[in-house]
Amino acid sequence: MSAIPEEFLKKTAELSDEVTAPFSKSKKVYIEGSRPDIRVPMRAVEQTPTQTDAGVEENPPIYVYDTSGPYTDPEASIDLMKGLPDVRDQWIAERDDTEQLDGPTSEYGATRQGDAALANLRFEHIRNPRRAKSGMNVSQMHYAKKGIITPEMEYIAIRENMMLQEMRDDPRYEKLLRQHKGESFGADIQDIITPEFVRDEIAKGRAIIPANINHPELEPMIIGRNFRVKVNTNIGNSAVSSSITEEVEKMVWSARWGGDTLMDLSTGKNIHETREWILRNSPMPIGTVPIYQALEKVNGKSEDLTWELFRDTLIEQAEQGVDYFTIHAGVRLQYVPLTANRVTGIVSRGGSIMAKWCLAHHEENFLYTHFEDICEIMKAYDVSFSLGDGLRPGCLADANDAAQFGELETLGELTKIAWEHDVQVMIEGPGHVPMHMIKENMEKELEDCFEAPFYTLGPLTTDIAPGYDHITSAIGAANIGWYGTAMLCYVTPKEHLGLPNKQDVRDGIITYKISAHASDLAKGFPGAQVRDNALSKARFEFRWEDQFNLGLDPEKAREFHDETMPKEAHKVAHFCSMCGPNFCSMKISQDVRDYASEHGYEVETAFDKGMKEKSKEFLASGAEIYKEV
Amino acid sequence: MSAIPEEFLKKTAELSDEVTAPFSKSKKVYIEGSRPDIRVPMRAVEQTPTQTDAGVEENPPIYVYDTSGPYTDPEASIDLMKGLPDVRDQWIAERDDTEQLDGPTSEYGATRQGDAALANLRFEHIRNPRRAKSGMNVSQMHYAKKGIITPEMEYIAIRENMMLQEMRDDPRYEKLLRQHKGESFGADIQDIITPEFVRDEIAKGRAIIPANINHPELEPMIIGRNFRVKVNTNIGNSAVSSSITEEVEKMVWSARWGGDTLMDLSTGKNIHETREWILRNSPMPIGTVPIYQALEKVNGKSEDLTWELFRDTLIEQAEQGVDYFTIHAGVRLQYVPLTANRVTGIVSRGGSIMAKWCLAHHEENFLYTHFEDICEIMKAYDVSFSLGDGLRPGCLADANDAAQFGELETLGELTKIAWEHDVQVMIEGPGHVPMHMIKENMEKELEDCFEAPFYTLGPLTTDIAPGYDHITSAIGAANIGWYGTAMLCYVTPKEHLGLPNKQDVRDGIITYKISAHASDLAKGFPGAQVRDNALSKARFEFRWEDQFNLGLDPEKAREFHDETMPKEAHKVAHFCSMCGPNFCSMKISQDVRDYASEHGYEVETAFDKGMKEKSKEFLASGAEIYKEV
Repeated sequence: MSAIPEEFLKKTAELSDEVTAPFSKSKKVYIEGSRPDIRVPMRAVEQTPTQTDAGVEENPPIYVYDTSGPYTDPEASIDLMKGLPDVRDQWIAERDDTEQLDGPTSEYGATRQGDAALANLRFEHIRNPRRAKSGMNVSQMHYAKKGIITPEMEYIAIRENMMLQEMRDDPRYEKLLRQHKGESFGADIQDIITPEFVRDEIAKGRAIIPANINHPELEPMIIGRNFRVKVNTNIGNSAVSSSITEEVEKMVWSARWGGDTLMDLSTGKNIHETREWILRNSPMPIGTVPIYQALEKVNGKSEDLTWELFRDTLIEQAEQGVDYFTIHAGVRLQYVPLTANRVTGIVSRGGSIMAKWCLAHHEENFLYTHFEDICEIMKAYDVSFSLGDGLRPGCLADANDAAQFGELETLGELTKIAWEHDVQVMIEGPGHVPMHMIKENMEKELEDCFEAPFYTLGPLTTDIAPGYDHITSAIGAANIGWYGTAMLCYVTPKEHLGLPNKQDVRDGIITYKISAHASDLAKGFPGAQVRDNALSKARFEFRWEDQFNLGLDPEKAREFHDETMPKEAHKVAHFCSMCGPNFCSMKISQDVRDYASEHGYEVETAFDKGMKEKSKEFLASGAEIYKEV
Repeated sequence: MSAIPEEFLKKTAELSDEVTAPFSKSKKVYIEGSRPDIRVPMRAVEQTPTQTDAGVEENPPIYVYDTSGPYTDPEASIDLMKGLPDVRDQWIAERDDTEQLDGPTSEYGATRQGDAALANLRFEHIRNPRRAKSGMNVSQMHYAKKGIITPEMEYIAIRENMMLQEMRDDPRYEKLLRQHKGESFGADIQDIITPEFVRDEIAKGRAIIPANINHPELEPMIIGRNFRVKVNTNIGNSAVSSSITEEVEKMVWSARWGGDTLMDLSTGKNIHETREWILRNSPMPIGTVPIYQALEKVNGKSEDLTWELFRDTLIEQAEQGVDYFTIHAGVRLQYVPLTANRVTGIVSRGGSIMAKWCLAHHEENFLYTHFEDICEIMKAYDVSFSLGDGLRPGCLADANDAAQFGELETLGELTKIAWEHDVQVMIEGPGHVPMHMIKENMEKELEDCFEAPFYTLGPLTTDIAPGYDHITSAIGAANIGWYGTAMLCYVTPKEHLGLPNKQDVRDGIITYKISAHASDLAKGFPGAQVRDNALSKARFEFRWEDQFNLGLDPEKAREFHDETMPKEAHKVAHFCSMCGPNFCSMKISQDVRDYASEHGYEVETAFDKGMKEKSKEFLASGAEIYKEV
């Protein structure tokens, strides 16, 4: 036991209250699909009524996309030692195309499992892994191409719609549904998401469902530009600091604030065991960069990496349940020298590992030469590719250069190969790009990679703000999300400076939820504006608590408000601290409304007329219901 | 003295050390113009040399646009009781078109000056105000139209260039000058800013120099879309909290972090005296919303406002030295009912004051009917118009509606009138706008208002993040700045929730400096990327201290770094906490570079070739020197 420090022991695996506290005035609801075990979680935010001269106006609950899993459900009993209940086990079993193995088939996985010294560290209830039966392909893309709508696909359709049809049928939501027509740059934004549409997008490769058959705990979600823009978060211990308990707590914390997927980028000790704890307790798909662990296995010497070792690592992680792998197969030998005169060379860790290997051996990247072998593994567990941008620019000066775009073309070539194996693919993107050069990234990606979903880190739009790179990159992220990027990899304020703490992770996620939502609004994703409208109405009516509760971070909003006006009475007062009790522009606006109605002004706006004309079309469920004001 | 609380007394007017501490490794430099009293301040950030195998490479100082005034100059002796030294007094006097009055000519100003009870509160060294001689017009636009290049214009040309020509002549900057060609949406981005270009832009009304003849302390700056994008900050006490000392401290704090102009939005007690303290100590142009003070004078009853009272307030403030006035003359009676069915009605405080007045009297807005009278006052002191967007949307649902755009057209009509008087004008813009509808705002503004500079609040791109509206709006601000907005009004994290404290102000400003800089980069403002490139090079070379010092907020960056790696040794270590000491992608990239050069790869990039080809053109000073990679 000598090598394992005290803080890694299982007994410390307790979550703090702050990561599991239910959100104020929120109710966890589950929407049932066509079968009772399709239960899609949402968070319903209750609102208080509006007091008007005419009486009481009820404000309906607002449904919020909920990534937090059972952790925020007061009904759920959480036991990290046992892991989360299965969501998908039955669906996977029913398909009858997998077999339960006797234990890990990777050499490394078997060794770790058999190591008695790790007992105090290891997750107790490790299941034997599943694998596709010989000759079978268990990827969602495979089913989709065969015309099968899986329970995962139906689950996702319900989840993406977020009660839209129900709201349309309910007059209380009529005004809240008002929304400007979006500008979606050719994306096929649907008026309502059907399971068949999900299937079709998966079949075309325009979206992926990261869902390893060995991660039945996950709540299915989709990454594609015709769906809500998603946010990825990162955690990971490193040689410098962190422990298992910290990492699990961070995972739950990330889920709480809205992380849709999570990458475990651990590079320190006990990576294998840390990952098991995370997977067994994660409602979100988990991604990794397997080359990081492979490198640990050769003590950090990238030149000692081999295909055999890497292959064993892939199987090890696939059998634990990792949902997507970042694979830097596009870092071809020929591109490496193109980076030599860059201002910041190669900044992707995986990219530089492979570049160093290529140079040391003067050979082509083994991830590229063994790409079909990798596909064989991916399809046996339904692991999705996240094709890594190992040559992404690390500063504005290096943006959109020959190395970056050369690699992108190779990623497109690899996408085609993966699709021949029905393996799901998304493409990683930069990085650091000035605003006017962002769109070119998106357009090239769609063209070169045949509309496979794009997954970008930011991009950061300036290099001069260390300590604020969540913001420099939120600007780029919102833009590229609008142009069509399907998932945004978050950046914390500590980017370039150090490892993020809990507060940094929260700041990073909220910032990226803002970018993702701003993108959804700009694309005109149906119903995206309901929450904005409800919050704005609450703001106008001085329903302070509703305003807090409808926000992305109710706790922060409440705390900020209370700094200036701590008294409880102020939260129901019809004024705010900006103007004080004697004058308030919101209050005057209400007078304007009264005046206009008293004096018989015909104040019906073009918008309202549009709403009425269109109300019948709602029922017919046409494609572009919203009318621009 | 009874009415004045202790904290308002002069003796408390001491700045804290944190607002005046010089920036680490920075030197205040002054660039002399064509006459010795044109001394343009800049901040030179010193860098440490790079240690390479080939020897020591010097890294030249990086010049940073400096809004902080004498406060960060260790050579300057600051005495708030006396105010800042004059920068422009001689220039104004030389023009011989103004006269020194015997005292305030406004009734209110004279009363306050004569009130012995205010002695302990009043700034001691109040100058008698200047005013244009009868029949004279002292606006910068007036001079510009007559072909006169004022010292203010020359000062601004030097300031905007930020040593660009000197850097081009100095081989140490060659690589740091690399920059992608921008996309400027038809703006006339100059390769180098000449005093004549400044004059021409002012004459055309495409830029303004807010510079009241009674604010000689200010360091001239320009607001126009062919110049660097600027950031406005707000301060102001309210009935709820704050005091004079706090407001002055906040002003200096705003200047420190990069606020280009500052609006004093005070609505509480002693507005007149607070303003005097701020003006006498402010190196930045100061703006106000005179209707706020007028409203205080009628005890908050907007229906009691009169043109006479308002006129007196304008003169009162103009004689104190306010550089620009927000005037809500576009809130015409006919537009008011158009807001009745909005989700959030009228959210502009000035807009709702005027709307209420219009409705109460059922009369046209007196600011509109008296607009030419206002112009007469403006040109006698060179106060610029900031034509207020009183009907801006307060939520996404209300964006770009008939009320907003109706008002904008009226602002265009008023712009023409102001220009007939040679009065400088900028146009205020929204507010809350989803991303895809932002560009329409800019395009309509340019068309309807004849290219007068646009000055926008954000816009916020979603309504769902109270507590983070500096970020929701930074996204919109960066985009609209790129499209052509000349100045961005900052938003703090407390927006909609409460009054910002010092930390919120800093967060708000840095966030907006990011947006403004991202815009400059996207527009391709020459030399804008030098700081990014220098910081990126420092990052790549593990020159941690240089990386911190080159950032927008060196203190925050250092603090974040030290949280994870507090040891001094780590600041020179060739690794960072993200990857730990055993592996670092930056280090590997250096190996790649060594490898490429050892193996004789021809790694000269297209970019470098471009640089060499173009180096001769630099000397010829053509318009578009930068080559896209």
